[in-house]
Amino acid sequence: MYSNSGTNLASLSPSEIKDWINTFDTVLTDCDGVIWVDNTPLPFATDVINKFIENNKKLFFVTNNSTKTRNEFVAKSNKLGFNVGLDNIISTAYLAAQYLKAKHFDKKCYVVGTTGITRELDAVGIRHTGAGPDVLQGTLGEAVHAFQPDPEVGAVVVGFDEHFSFLKMMRAASYLNDPEVLFIGTNTDERFPMPDCVIPGTGSIVNAVTTCAEREPIVMGKPNKHICDILEEEYKVDPKRTLMIGDRCNTDILLGKNCGFQTLLVETGIHNAADIEKFAQSNDPDVRKLVPDVYTSKLGDLLPYL
Amino acid sequence: MYSNSGTNLASLSPSEIKDWINTFDTVLTDCDGVIWVDNTPLPFATDVINKFIENNKKLFFVTNNSTKTRNEFVAKSNKLGFNVGLDNIISTAYLAAQYLKAKHFDKKCYVVGTTGITRELDAVGIRHTGAGPDVLQGTLGEAVHAFQPDPEVGAVVVGFDEHFSFLKMMRAASYLNDPEVLFIGTNTDERFPMPDCVIPGTGSIVNAVTTCAEREPIVMGKPNKHICDILEEEYKVDPKRTLMIGDRCNTDILLGKNCGFQTLLVETGIHNAADIEKFAQSNDPDVRKLVPDVYTSKLGDLLPYL
Repeated sequence: MYSNSGTNLASLSPSEIKDWINTFDTVLTDCDGVIWVDNTPLPFATDVINKFIENNKKLFFVTNNSTKTRNEFVAKSNKLGFNVGLDNIISTAYLAAQYLKAKHFDKKCYVVGTTGITRELDAVGIRHTGAGPDVLQGTLGEAVHAFQPDPEVGAVVVGFDEHFSFLKMMRAASYLNDPEVLFIGTNTDERFPMPDCVIPGTGSIVNAVTTCAEREPIVMGKPNKHICDILEEEYKVDPKRTLMIGDRCNTDILLGKNCGFQTLLVETGIHNAADIEKFAQSNDPDVRKLVPDVYTSKLGDLLPYL
Repeated sequence: MYSNSGTNLASLSPSEIKDWINTFDTVLTDCDGVIWVDNTPLPFATDVINKFIENNKKLFFVTNNSTKTRNEFVAKSNKLGFNVGLDNIISTAYLAAQYLKAKHFDKKCYVVGTTGITRELDAVGIRHTGAGPDVLQGTLGEAVHAFQPDPEVGAVVVGFDEHFSFLKMMRAASYLNDPEVLFIGTNTDERFPMPDCVIPGTGSIVNAVTTCAEREPIVMGKPNKHICDILEEEYKVDPKRTLMIGDRCNTDILLGKNCGFQTLLVETGIHNAADIEKFAQSNDPDVRKLVPDVYTSKLGDLLPYL
């Protein structure tokens, strides 16, 4: 309706806003920076989400975080007042498990990642190995000599892993040397800046493995179009009547663009109106793609119209 | 003389070969796959190298390997019969130390790497921290909380490190968040394929840090032109009268091209005549750059003409 226009919600009349809301019946939303920050809900975000559900919109929390299972996301969401269940959560660990299940994968996964991934694999009956610490003991030569590749491994799944190590990288690259072995990355987020340090994101780990494997993974997370395929196949979602809400243009909004969704940027996280203006003025069509249809200061601004 | 022509040495007459040899007075050579394989010298390679030295050619072993000091390279070389000394070795750890020394760097280095790097830093009196195992104890949250950045750190040097870990990546990226902190990568070799496994190369580690630091390093090793600057400044080498010998077109030969050296490919390692033909027929000028001036089956073929 406001396609790529970067329209300020505040510039629309109440009836225009209501008409716009009626143009979608599926709502996808990013979590951190949109509905909550860490463990604090953003103002009126719970009300807006719960109203969407009451109004029979199909609602999905879409997160690149691979460290939590869907059950854990539901528990956190409920604790913060969001009336969501398992079917409302799309996480990258879940997507990875679904991807393998859809392929009738019956071998073992080598996992660079946490229980967020292994539990989702368990849930679909896929065996796995590799999670947890894997620290060099003795010399590298000894470790190379001792390495016995597991012949059952048929896929490598790489997600966030605070135990990422040289040996894990070696094992992943060694398995991936067989072109039949599938290579899945949960997401490519580069990093999480903190006040006094930088926490590397999954993208750092994925790029390390990609370099030594000399192969590119299929990536589950935003902004990859893969999520859209799952939504259309499993949940019969109509992209044209779907709204993607996010705080980050190069993941959330770009996902929307890649999938043909409508898009809404909220200014409670990474990007804001000034960024949109910069993107809109770029000569690079890939940068102009980052302009959302509509933006507003916070998700709660929608409440009066629901 | 045979600029970019991919000329087969065997197609030249003895006097043409001798004339060609007289066009250079500096010889740079890669090590593994050219003069030795692991711990075995290649046929007549020691004789050729020792003849070059006897004939007063300036000779340099140029290696991307950051795990050995120059002293250690000399010890290995001498053991295998090569009459070289410290001044004949250019290694990436040495280049990193020289680079910092030339900048009158007087802060501390955070090193992702081995004693190959720390000993070269010691040799020029530069303090360092970080080498050796750095394994997550407890939770990531605890580690983030406990991380006290060393305010003395003014550079991050990333080389090969079999103890590479998530925490090292976090520390490197955190230091690099300060744009004043220098970022040096020894080299970008992707990997070392072994019979039963793939050993990740420094390039994997550098790419991991580059991703979460959101910065590009200055790279010391081949094919980066940086080596040439050092050779011209420190050793008064004339690029036009310099020959680069290697077994790998995308590092050794490309270094030669990037520096304006003459180039010789030997077929005892990665690339051979068939590869040259493929490169020569490419429509991509960057690929055609990989064609050496001259190639021959092995370094020892030069012996009769020295």
